[in-house]
Amino acid sequence: MDRLISEILTCGAPVVVGLDPTLGMIPERIKKENLEKYGVSLKAAAGMLLDFNKEIIDAIYDIVPAVKPQIAMYEQFGPEGVAVYAATTTYAREKGMVVIGDVKRGDIASTAEAYAAHIKGVCFEDVDFEPWCEDAVTLNPYLGIDGIEPFIRVCESRNKGIFVLVKTSNPSSSQLQDLLLKDKEITVFEHIADLVSEWGRSTIGSLGYSSVGAVVGATFAEQGAALRKRMPHTFFLVPGYGAQGATGRDLRGFFDRDGKGCIVNSSRGIIAAWQKNQRFGENDIGEAARQAAMDMIQDLSCL
Amino acid sequence: MDRLISEILTCGAPVVVGLDPTLGMIPERIKKENLEKYGVSLKAAAGMLLDFNKEIIDAIYDIVPAVKPQIAMYEQFGPEGVAVYAATTTYAREKGMVVIGDVKRGDIASTAEAYAAHIKGVCFEDVDFEPWCEDAVTLNPYLGIDGIEPFIRVCESRNKGIFVLVKTSNPSSSQLQDLLLKDKEITVFEHIADLVSEWGRSTIGSLGYSSVGAVVGATFAEQGAALRKRMPHTFFLVPGYGAQGATGRDLRGFFDRDGKGCIVNSSRGIIAAWQKNQRFGENDIGEAARQAAMDMIQDLSCL
Repeated sequence: MDRLISEILTCGAPVVVGLDPTLGMIPERIKKENLEKYGVSLKAAAGMLLDFNKEIIDAIYDIVPAVKPQIAMYEQFGPEGVAVYAATTTYAREKGMVVIGDVKRGDIASTAEAYAAHIKGVCFEDVDFEPWCEDAVTLNPYLGIDGIEPFIRVCESRNKGIFVLVKTSNPSSSQLQDLLLKDKEITVFEHIADLVSEWGRSTIGSLGYSSVGAVVGATFAEQGAALRKRMPHTFFLVPGYGAQGATGRDLRGFFDRDGKGCIVNSSRGIIAAWQKNQRFGENDIGEAARQAAMDMIQDLSCL
Repeated sequence: MDRLISEILTCGAPVVVGLDPTLGMIPERIKKENLEKYGVSLKAAAGMLLDFNKEIIDAIYDIVPAVKPQIAMYEQFGPEGVAVYAATTTYAREKGMVVIGDVKRGDIASTAEAYAAHIKGVCFEDVDFEPWCEDAVTLNPYLGIDGIEPFIRVCESRNKGIFVLVKTSNPSSSQLQDLLLKDKEITVFEHIADLVSEWGRSTIGSLGYSSVGAVVGATFAEQGAALRKRMPHTFFLVPGYGAQGATGRDLRGFFDRDGKGCIVNSSRGIIAAWQKNQRFGENDIGEAARQAAMDMIQDLSCL
């Protein structure tokens, strides 16, 4: 987590760009090129996502510290899509960006051990491979520590990070996360917050934050601020800014006194910015994204 | 879910074989062949899993109704591994088996819509693709209905199924799932069970079970039996038999009065059976798996 925080400080921007492209965001010129190259195939669909992502990354890598590709957007196109997810993370890393894989995995211990290859890589015939090129991933806590522990060991040994879902940004997060537990008189998400703090204790780095971070939705400002106090050594990954409705003002409480403590994600608001302003055409997806990212950095710097 | 239940009745076997291969289970001859073909690469590792899986499927497809590949075991080898996951599901379907993808996905609505391609397929340039070849998938309920609803619509329109995690088989499932909720005086997993019942109400089929199933671990016999009564129209996917410690006797309460209502998974106990009995050598992985599957069917038929 130290590296992520350092990059945020270097850029002066607690911003991560969500690389969650849909075909509806892809300009015709990129579509045409891939259809000509690959025909009507999932390879063509995946190729469109990759070309699009590269233009976005090229336009923002010097002002934004991190990207967060959402693997579902790639997985929907099958293995060809997944290959482009990995090509995207590889490209972003080459550009020096921190890569947060939004995979939300979670399973029993032996399975989580396999999933941990996302940040650990895999050794095969005495050769180390790192097919996923992720510096951190998001994880789901429903199965408890069994699903998290193999990742914590990688965080300790390889300076990687994880973000465990605590309070998610979506409306129905209340169906489980907001319920009150009897014995402790705290909500489910507060209980998970306490577990996450405890799980991260052995990994607190030189900047005061542990490698076991938390996902805390921007759409719940009050809960976010309370969680900031509840888990002072836990770094937050904050989705829900922009398209999901939250603004910079909602996020004041998510930061610590020094203006550190969280990184805010925007996906559609940045990568689809070219479609939202008549000033931009289909050759300007990068420029529009850069402008939207600068606006967001500005919005957050006023906190 | 009707098709799964029909296949179970046809085979007389409420058994699903978990295709969770590790390299440690692969015989030398398969390793050698793939290393010769692909060199030391993740393509070779993935190729080993596929050859292994095919031998298992060939040996069991006429006596076992379903397979459940755990995607983590493939994902650990990167996109090449994921491609072999899809090649495995495709092969199993060609052999007439029901395919339950153990993917445990769960996300916000727009993302879950993309993940739903696992069972819905994806339409690209007016052509329908079905890259994942899954008839059902497992899902995680931590985000509430938002992460589940897009899948339910596919269940309704395309006769597919889902299994939502309710009470998982791993030891630390207690860290969240067993906690008592204040208002309702029920545990978290009972609350999720009630949600799952409700979510499935619109999809109850001709055999009395809804398309929205539940994952209920075999390792918690008492809870499983109580859940059977609590959710009479919910079909159970039951992991934890065999290698994780549960036996047929533990499972009596998971079935309904007619001996229906659940399908029990065994992974290592079947696919690695060739390593556990000196009678078998590395040319007998299929035969050993078939024998282990028959033993399991026998064990369960005595309930």
